[in-house]
Amino acid sequence: MTAASQARRRRDADELEIVAFERGEHTSYSACGIPYFIAGDVGALDDLVARTPAEHRARDIDVHLRHEVVAIDLARRAVQVADLDGGTERWEPFDSLVYATGSVPMRPDLPGSDADGIFGVQTLDDGALIRRVLESDGADRPPPRRAVVVGGGYIGLEMAEALVKHGLDVTLIEAAAHPMSTLDPDVGALIADAIRGVGVTLYEGERVTGFGTDGGRGGGHVTSVATAEREVPADIVLLGLGSRPNVALARDAGIPLGTSGGVAVDRRMQTQIAAVWAAGDCVESFHRVSRAPVVVALGTHANKQGRVAGINIGGGYAAFHGVVGTAVSKICEYEVARTGLNEREAAAAGFQYVTAEFEGTTRAGYFPGTMPIRIKMLAERRTGRLLGAQIVGREGAAKRIDVIALALWNEMTVEDLLGTDLSYAPPFSPVWDPVLVAARRTFEAVEGGPA
Amino acid sequence: MTAASQARRRRDADELEIVAFERGEHTSYSACGIPYFIAGDVGALDDLVARTPAEHRARDIDVHLRHEVVAIDLARRAVQVADLDGGTERWEPFDSLVYATGSVPMRPDLPGSDADGIFGVQTLDDGALIRRVLESDGADRPPPRRAVVVGGGYIGLEMAEALVKHGLDVTLIEAAAHPMSTLDPDVGALIADAIRGVGVTLYEGERVTGFGTDGGRGGGHVTSVATAEREVPADIVLLGLGSRPNVALARDAGIPLGTSGGVAVDRRMQTQIAAVWAAGDCVESFHRVSRAPVVVALGTHANKQGRVAGINIGGGYAAFHGVVGTAVSKICEYEVARTGLNEREAAAAGFQYVTAEFEGTTRAGYFPGTMPIRIKMLAERRTGRLLGAQIVGREGAAKRIDVIALALWNEMTVEDLLGTDLSYAPPFSPVWDPVLVAARRTFEAVEGGPA
Repeated sequence: MTAASQARRRRDADELEIVAFERGEHTSYSACGIPYFIAGDVGALDDLVARTPAEHRARDIDVHLRHEVVAIDLARRAVQVADLDGGTERWEPFDSLVYATGSVPMRPDLPGSDADGIFGVQTLDDGALIRRVLESDGADRPPPRRAVVVGGGYIGLEMAEALVKHGLDVTLIEAAAHPMSTLDPDVGALIADAIRGVGVTLYEGERVTGFGTDGGRGGGHVTSVATAEREVPADIVLLGLGSRPNVALARDAGIPLGTSGGVAVDRRMQTQIAAVWAAGDCVESFHRVSRAPVVVALGTHANKQGRVAGINIGGGYAAFHGVVGTAVSKICEYEVARTGLNEREAAAAGFQYVTAEFEGTTRAGYFPGTMPIRIKMLAERRTGRLLGAQIVGREGAAKRIDVIALALWNEMTVEDLLGTDLSYAPPFSPVWDPVLVAARRTFEAVEGGPA
Repeated sequence: MTAASQARRRRDADELEIVAFERGEHTSYSACGIPYFIAGDVGALDDLVARTPAEHRARDIDVHLRHEVVAIDLARRAVQVADLDGGTERWEPFDSLVYATGSVPMRPDLPGSDADGIFGVQTLDDGALIRRVLESDGADRPPPRRAVVVGGGYIGLEMAEALVKHGLDVTLIEAAAHPMSTLDPDVGALIADAIRGVGVTLYEGERVTGFGTDGGRGGGHVTSVATAEREVPADIVLLGLGSRPNVALARDAGIPLGTSGGVAVDRRMQTQIAAVWAAGDCVESFHRVSRAPVVVALGTHANKQGRVAGINIGGGYAAFHGVVGTAVSKICEYEVARTGLNEREAAAAGFQYVTAEFEGTTRAGYFPGTMPIRIKMLAERRTGRLLGAQIVGREGAAKRIDVIALALWNEMTVEDLLGTDLSYAPPFSPVWDPVLVAARRTFEAVEGGPA
């Protein structure tokens, strides 16, 4: 919808007709807000909607809800659309196409995985459904008491915390040694402590092998989650196993995918098919540090990419210059952030690197409300080029990752970074901002290491 | 003392003897913390001390307190030192000298300006004295009830707020149209509202013409502050008129000053005299945006410069690569920050520029605790090079200036900046961080303007 809006800003309705098909009930919403809606921090689902279909229609963007595109014919330049309520299908021609199908949650192919009571957390419709189930709204079952979250990534952790807030007995099962496997293990171990601290039962290094059900019709309703080590009773199961780009339609149509599995696009967000554009979780992006294509499902990239595609479709020129792997999350009282490459990723990209860590405070040590912050930083051996960082801390810690992201964006060395002019006043920072101290420590590790 | 510490890290006591002379009672303290000590946010003055003289001495740094260097003889390579308590003077020879005399508060040369009860806010000793006076500790006068702060810069505003917290009736007199004259007037007007909001009486555009006194011996004690428009009763007066580099000794010795009035140094912090180094508020720095030398009295620069000088004296190589004019302050509930050039400075540097503003929120609009943030940004006409920004907002707003500072450091355009990979999650940011939206708006202003 961002692409549609941007194209409309540059072309009036008499120059450019814009038609949008959406399988669900909503447009332009914040999927990232769903855990906070479940937790009750956000009162109404509508609060997560940035722009309604009616608002888009008022700007001459012809939105069709509950309409699913089921095929793309590149030769005929048309899409086949199923009206999910009317039950009819038709072909809609296009001059330009924007492929923005997002991602699909990973669903394990295991016994019982189709049972009722197992939910992905992807769309606003998912959010509405989960909250109805939690409140036993209109259901013949009592509200669930025991929840199992499968997967300890951002969404899994946020959902586990949300369900605790909602009053459930929550177990989180993570296949890796620690949750947040996108961070280095030492950082993940801290997160494990935090999530246990709010009362989540956490099993690490255990892979789910199947789901027990009550044997009802269809797949029945889920009753437990099994690992090799144990069976955990469950009234509701949330899947937090990540997502993969929703590329089935593109692949079937012959729109080329990239090596990462996302739709391949150039910097203007055009696919390898002329006038076929793509944006959002379904595409791959250039990682500016590893120089490899990556799929990163984040609303902020999707929005920027949509803007770029829309400007280009509208006759302008805009480019998406890639990502550096920045992400942030709040897990209980902890703020967690990362940017660039972690140790595993740096090694995979062929870098030799050094690391350093620093534990400091978010404000001057003597200032009321100062909070702990821990920064781990990676730099290339010998050159000292900044490669990545991870932050764990309390209030005021995580957003500092943006400074490091911008340093990565500009290919700075840690020596460059340690001398930069960051803001200082006691309510905001020690006289050396923790980011600068982390850079200084990492620089010393570069200098101290073998040349 | 940072220079001393860094040099010591690289050279043992048998290789390098380090002697330090300090006129006052303290070493290595946070002068920036003084207003918070006055306000009572920081309990003990010692909390502001990062490293005591004893701690320095334990590292073989021979600190002499209450010893003032009164002359430098470059030919003899020696400094003349007065023992302020003993009353004796002696010459101390050096191979390398670090000139780190800091700054002196501006004191108006006006009738009554030498009266008792008029204080600068510069050293920890000033802080201790002011608090003793406020608490009428050991004095024959009752505690002051009415305070006048002269000057509405960072220190003046912080002190005004601190004195209100302390229970005084506070008047702030600012000669410019608004406080915070380092910000553009529209931003300064907001600050004026905030400081009035906490109960400070603010007179803008009024210049102090003199001080009334009780006619006691010496200059007597201050009783009022006069402007052309009025006379304000005062039991205590705080000067917040800024500071100037303390260069008298250097000038007398023949150590060259720069055009800005600070001691001229190269990137290694060496003055134009071999093996005479300088660091801190007394030196001038290269401004990376205006390319002009500037004097910026900030603890964070002083620390970095001291580190650079100390590494070089210790036989290493380090450089200070300049400043971009970043500053931050908390004024009542408002967070205020700036970096780069404001409109007046940009014009003075010969730039033609466009500006844009954005008012948004610190977190996703729907997320609990989201706060307002207002960003004004300047970019060079035609090229779109980022020139500066100012932020005013509530909690979580100001530290975002660091991202903009880093963009300035790297000479990014606003178009570059708007596409960068800043962290996003609802508790931390809207899907487009306000910094990115401000950059987008400024880019549109660049594009929309005449070529």
